[in-house]
Amino acid sequence: MAHATRPVRRYAAWLADGVQSAADRAVSNPASLGIGDIIGFGGGQPASESYPLEALSRAYSRAILEDGRAVLPYGPTNGLLALREIVAERLGQRGINVGPENVLILTGSLQGLHLVGRITLDHGDTIATEAPTFMGALAAWEHQQPEYLTIPVDEHGMVVQVLEEALHARGPARRPKFVYLLPTFQNPSGVSMTLHRRQKLLELAEEHDLLIVEDDPYGEFWFDETMGSMPPVKSLPGAEERVIYLGTFSKTLAPGVRLAYAVAPPETINLLARAKRGVDFHSDTLLQQAVVHLIRDKEFDFEAHVVEGRAIYKARRDAMLDSLEAVFSSEAKWTRPEGGFFLWIDLPHGVSGDAVAAAAQAEGVAVLQGSIFYPNHDGGFNGLRLSYSNATPEHIREGIERLHRGVAAVAG
Amino acid sequence: MAHATRPVRRYAAWLADGVQSAADRAVSNPASLGIGDIIGFGGGQPASESYPLEALSRAYSRAILEDGRAVLPYGPTNGLLALREIVAERLGQRGINVGPENVLILTGSLQGLHLVGRITLDHGDTIATEAPTFMGALAAWEHQQPEYLTIPVDEHGMVVQVLEEALHARGPARRPKFVYLLPTFQNPSGVSMTLHRRQKLLELAEEHDLLIVEDDPYGEFWFDETMGSMPPVKSLPGAEERVIYLGTFSKTLAPGVRLAYAVAPPETINLLARAKRGVDFHSDTLLQQAVVHLIRDKEFDFEAHVVEGRAIYKARRDAMLDSLEAVFSSEAKWTRPEGGFFLWIDLPHGVSGDAVAAAAQAEGVAVLQGSIFYPNHDGGFNGLRLSYSNATPEHIREGIERLHRGVAAVAG
Repeated sequence: MAHATRPVRRYAAWLADGVQSAADRAVSNPASLGIGDIIGFGGGQPASESYPLEALSRAYSRAILEDGRAVLPYGPTNGLLALREIVAERLGQRGINVGPENVLILTGSLQGLHLVGRITLDHGDTIATEAPTFMGALAAWEHQQPEYLTIPVDEHGMVVQVLEEALHARGPARRPKFVYLLPTFQNPSGVSMTLHRRQKLLELAEEHDLLIVEDDPYGEFWFDETMGSMPPVKSLPGAEERVIYLGTFSKTLAPGVRLAYAVAPPETINLLARAKRGVDFHSDTLLQQAVVHLIRDKEFDFEAHVVEGRAIYKARRDAMLDSLEAVFSSEAKWTRPEGGFFLWIDLPHGVSGDAVAAAAQAEGVAVLQGSIFYPNHDGGFNGLRLSYSNATPEHIREGIERLHRGVAAVAG
Repeated sequence: MAHATRPVRRYAAWLADGVQSAADRAVSNPASLGIGDIIGFGGGQPASESYPLEALSRAYSRAILEDGRAVLPYGPTNGLLALREIVAERLGQRGINVGPENVLILTGSLQGLHLVGRITLDHGDTIATEAPTFMGALAAWEHQQPEYLTIPVDEHGMVVQVLEEALHARGPARRPKFVYLLPTFQNPSGVSMTLHRRQKLLELAEEHDLLIVEDDPYGEFWFDETMGSMPPVKSLPGAEERVIYLGTFSKTLAPGVRLAYAVAPPETINLLARAKRGVDFHSDTLLQQAVVHLIRDKEFDFEAHVVEGRAIYKARRDAMLDSLEAVFSSEAKWTRPEGGFFLWIDLPHGVSGDAVAAAAQAEGVAVLQGSIFYPNHDGGFNGLRLSYSNATPEHIREGIERLHRGVAAVAG
């Protein structure tokens, strides 16, 4: 046990430049997910009651006992054909018309973000993102120390006009390597980009030859049919060549198993797959085969499971909106998401989200301070992200009351 | 289906420098593993007959039905404590005395190589490797386009004296960022480094302040007790701070599920874990819990399963050595591994390994040409790597005869 007590000497000599000094972009506080008596509004966790345990156990059993000798050896980097076919088929329901040759199976969407960075980014390149944006994405690109061109988000999603002005002002030499966005039920704001802005983004992309990365972990969880028919950017004319779409089983099945997919033209898939061969060689083939069995299981309806998820999250969103209205009334403003897992609350001016997050934790509710979702640390100071996805309506009501006590403690 | 027919325009504008031109280091020809009537001497596959399917199915069933709601959410980046404890305990049997705080669970050993590169390498840095070495490792570092200082391997492993001379000649300013080696049942040569050379390597590391990466996927599969007691470099005095050890469940359980581990001082584990949070956030927690159940299963003896593996691979090595002796006699030379999955054969001078690999494929046996295992493409030209791990003794005899016909076709 010499390790625990002796310091590592001359450590820095072994490290890449900037590894020690770079900002740590990842949030790894497990308490943010809710542990013990803490009510968890912190994470992007799906409802743990909804995991289809019986069906998943049956699916693994089949994958192991019927197909084990075929799927337990090293497997193909692109993923199992049967799963890529299922992914393509399901995407067709949302207007993304692709074949299995357009699909790369990933070990989580985050891996997709990492691989996109790996094939596109040189040190110090610029990425355009929404502000606020998914802070976990920033960890995927930390190694290349990119600059962030941040575009504000309003109730209609990314303000594309600001992107347009920035692109004109910067010129082709300072064009971002790609635009990263979560247009549907955005993380962390919960808002969705209008169809008009989606189209406008693609026009801009054509004009400036931009690569677009559409991250869509929550897109299947809409709360009414209007949003259910909102087309992903990837499905619109002009997206075929320049949009890399990321989807995941983390929210529809479970996040712990790490299974997602990238959708892109075959040439891009080949580049991403080649990069993936140097990252984890391939994703778990047993898991892939289990998911194939799960989705084809005659005794289990995966699509009905997703529909049930929509109802669960809608009821939880309603509970949170009602509680906020009852408890905060006009003291604060919040978004009204039409799908997904999150909403964003702006506290009264001058009340620090960082301070409230700490005070709320002391009151027994975990939330994430808004400031961490701004890549350039220049906003969100009185905001919070609240996740309603993995708390019951009763806990949500209690949690909002605890949050209010936390705000009161800070506002004094 | 516009993707399949329209070319991607102005593609290069989106890519990082060198992504298109860099050598593709990965071997992804599935035929090398043996498919259909092809006998597979190409891959590093464990014996597919040995997968413990019943026990694995039971383990997954328990992990899902008993622990599913706990292990299916997002999990800890370092890995489940119970699995890290098991890893530490098993390593103790081989003289590596560490605790769970020294263990990071990985999505395959390759991920460990990638993460080590991510925290240590700047563009163009130098890595010292054996020559020949595991070609898959090179894909993990492709992004940083490192230079390779290659050290020859003889029947006693890496020739440490050559490393010593190179270090002296290069001086501190051109010191390699780390030394990568597979000291035990090396891939691709099958040889093992002597204890004396392991000690000498650590002395050199102390003198030159070197970081060492010990990759040990095959170390549990020894064929006699002399090699069973060969200490990993990580277990020797002086290794504590400067050796990152990589072990895997790919060979003892199955490779398709992607589960491995890095062992290092806690400070290094923290840096690797932070890099991992930007790569796949964490490894599959359901798989981790299933392996915990598997190893603790009262109805299944994991250690006996590993011992059975030793007997299987020893019988297959014997079959290959006997067949080579019978068929090739004095025409060629080959190594006599004391464990692991591979041996290396040197064909008669002037006979190209590349040509023989192609001719052998036509004869119905897949082998890998030796040249791909040399990072600087400067050796192995009349060599082949032969894997005996996933072919029965009967297939091994038939495969060696086919290989001989392939050699005859090339040698004329």
